[in-house]
Amino acid sequence: MANFTVRSIGRVESSLTDLSSAPRQADEGAPSAWLVFDDAVLEAARNLRVGDEAILLTWLDRAQRDVLSVHPRGDTSRPQEGVFSTRSPHRPNPVGLHRVEITAIDGSRVQVRQLEALNGTPIIDVKPVLNEDVSQR
Amino acid sequence: MANFTVRSIGRVESSLTDLSSAPRQADEGAPSAWLVFDDAVLEAARNLRVGDEAILLTWLDRAQRDVLSVHPRGDTSRPQEGVFSTRSPHRPNPVGLHRVEITAIDGSRVQVRQLEALNGTPIIDVKPVLNEDVSQR
Repeated sequence: MANFTVRSIGRVESSLTDLSSAPRQADEGAPSAWLVFDDAVLEAARNLRVGDEAILLTWLDRAQRDVLSVHPRGDTSRPQEGVFSTRSPHRPNPVGLHRVEITAIDGSRVQVRQLEALNGTPIIDVKPVLNEDVSQR
Repeated sequence: MANFTVRSIGRVESSLTDLSSAPRQADEGAPSAWLVFDDAVLEAARNLRVGDEAILLTWLDRAQRDVLSVHPRGDTSRPQEGVFSTRSPHRPNPVGLHRVEITAIDGSRVQVRQLEALNGTPIIDVKPVLNEDVSQR
């Protein structure tokens, strides 16, 4: 297998610090959070605007990478499923995928509504939402 | 900055071999393609089903990682924008994000409709689509 190096380009600042109490999905009571970008990538973030919908990719650095099956939502009454059919953070490459709305921008800091990532989580990319991401074909 | 190691967990098999002629987005004439998973992660893929909509993450290994601004869609008549506001493959962490529909499964091979990734592109993750990915908040 080939390996590649992902670089952290910033960090999440959030009131969420405890893995066990964090919501599983953003729409399950996640708080707003700040994305704090490293100076080296500020140029890439300069066209982000308040009101933009974006896709945030994070590196879930507290996840277990040797897990291939999980009980969906941690519910042991449900049979285990392969992690590619779940959004478990535990998976071979623990990339977090978050749909976010930008609610404020302050220099290198971008505030988003409802993010379920823990405080300190590394940011690896931000992308605009495309129609094809959301349309049912 | 912190670094992390992403592992290739499979490869795209596609008739697309030429970067210059590849469609920019899946809905711009991309062909169907096969996702060929490594044996080591087959357990994680075992609940994927024909008809599933999924999010495929790839590592765009032919991208340039030192690019922070681009002309959108390569159109030099448009002003440059920061790459976090574009879907350019050229960005600090060249993770490809693809909404796919599974059209066939044959052992370790999963066929998807319309994929704009080049032949040989490394696969890094597959996730199910959630309502919150597609709903406008």
